[in-house]
Amino acid sequence: MSSAKLSGVKCLTFDVFGTVVDWRGSVIRECEELGRQRGVDVDWAALVDAWRGGYAPAMDRVRRGELPWTRLDELHRMTLDRLLDEFGITGLAEADIAHLNRAWHRLEPWPDSVEGLTRLRRKFVLATLSNGNISLLVNMARHARLPWDCVLSSELARHYKRDPEVYRMAAYLLDVRPEEVLMVAAHQDDLQAARQEGFRTAFVLRPLEYGPDADIDLTPDPDFDLVARDFLDLADQLQT
Amino acid sequence: MSSAKLSGVKCLTFDVFGTVVDWRGSVIRECEELGRQRGVDVDWAALVDAWRGGYAPAMDRVRRGELPWTRLDELHRMTLDRLLDEFGITGLAEADIAHLNRAWHRLEPWPDSVEGLTRLRRKFVLATLSNGNISLLVNMARHARLPWDCVLSSELARHYKRDPEVYRMAAYLLDVRPEEVLMVAAHQDDLQAARQEGFRTAFVLRPLEYGPDADIDLTPDPDFDLVARDFLDLADQLQT
Repeated sequence: MSSAKLSGVKCLTFDVFGTVVDWRGSVIRECEELGRQRGVDVDWAALVDAWRGGYAPAMDRVRRGELPWTRLDELHRMTLDRLLDEFGITGLAEADIAHLNRAWHRLEPWPDSVEGLTRLRRKFVLATLSNGNISLLVNMARHARLPWDCVLSSELARHYKRDPEVYRMAAYLLDVRPEEVLMVAAHQDDLQAARQEGFRTAFVLRPLEYGPDADIDLTPDPDFDLVARDFLDLADQLQT
Repeated sequence: MSSAKLSGVKCLTFDVFGTVVDWRGSVIRECEELGRQRGVDVDWAALVDAWRGGYAPAMDRVRRGELPWTRLDELHRMTLDRLLDEFGITGLAEADIAHLNRAWHRLEPWPDSVEGLTRLRRKFVLATLSNGNISLLVNMARHARLPWDCVLSSELARHYKRDPEVYRMAAYLLDVRPEEVLMVAAHQDDLQAARQEGFRTAFVLRPLEYGPDADIDLTPDPDFDLVARDFLDLADQLQT
């Protein structure tokens, strides 16, 4: 885990949902608040888990060509419309549903994210590399005060992670060699796909991403360059 | 010039070279410094003016399909190589030339730019919309501390301004209607092209862009929505 082997790194690219921000806690809070205001009483945590559960299958439909390129905002909305029906929620106006769908633009950072990014930015170029669309990521950065140098999204490649085109696009736009980029993520498959394209990899442990009761395997792939408890630990290990 | 008609504006997109940063003064200073260090004594201001003079013709070669899509960094380098030859400059190593070419990544802002952008950002999403490539704009923002929410470039459309694809790409990625975007530029043809796509327009006067002796017509097209002396005046007029 020495950072000596990372001496050539110039840019850090970040997965965002789960790695930088707590999507689950944030979206549940927004749903519960709306539910209180509109008198809709359902198991919002279950709805949010199902909403996120619809994410990979929706991207797969784009990947297989069943859907043309579709922004994450629109995939979120398609899934939400189905779930409102499945959960029997009928009391929401279109403006409520549109607002709820944009809860993904207003996610809260993990407690260490802003301070850690601020430290890391002193030494490295920081870019998002997320499946969120550009406008979602820009609104989120303004909301959560995330100090990105550059907002990069799968949208620019018109391919969703973990398709290799996304990582190649990032290295091309940042104008660096793949080995000069450190991909930072809480998801091992994202890092493995980045590594396949020649990126360095930092695995950040986010044990609460799927809630306190989730059973997820955090045993890191031994091929990752770094494993960090959070962004402050990452900044320590990268000596910034 | 009332800002009432601009009440629906959500995003400001900025031309960068000449509008936000003083390319001419900055590049001349870098050239002169390198010339002193390497004992190369030429009329660097003339070289820089010729360098910038090569910009539109080089983009036109891409536009006409004589060159495939080529980043501005590479167009700059092609022009620089030709000018070093024309000016009879032979004493520079490859590392010097590469460094000089990246002077465009290290441009200094006009005195009002950072404070003006910081004020404007309180109320609007701020994005670049420049012919500079993404990595150039990211390095410049770090160097000059420009507080962008989002770095957008012609590179993402693979078309150079004033091609309409560039403006359409920006509205698409920011996920706003064209009339919700205010294009800010010191160049009337850029604003006219943006207006053609439905953007609002703010003309910022930068009388020194081409040096103290340049004779440029600053009489604004009466169709522009706003005319501002600088970014502080722009922030005043937009009430932020």
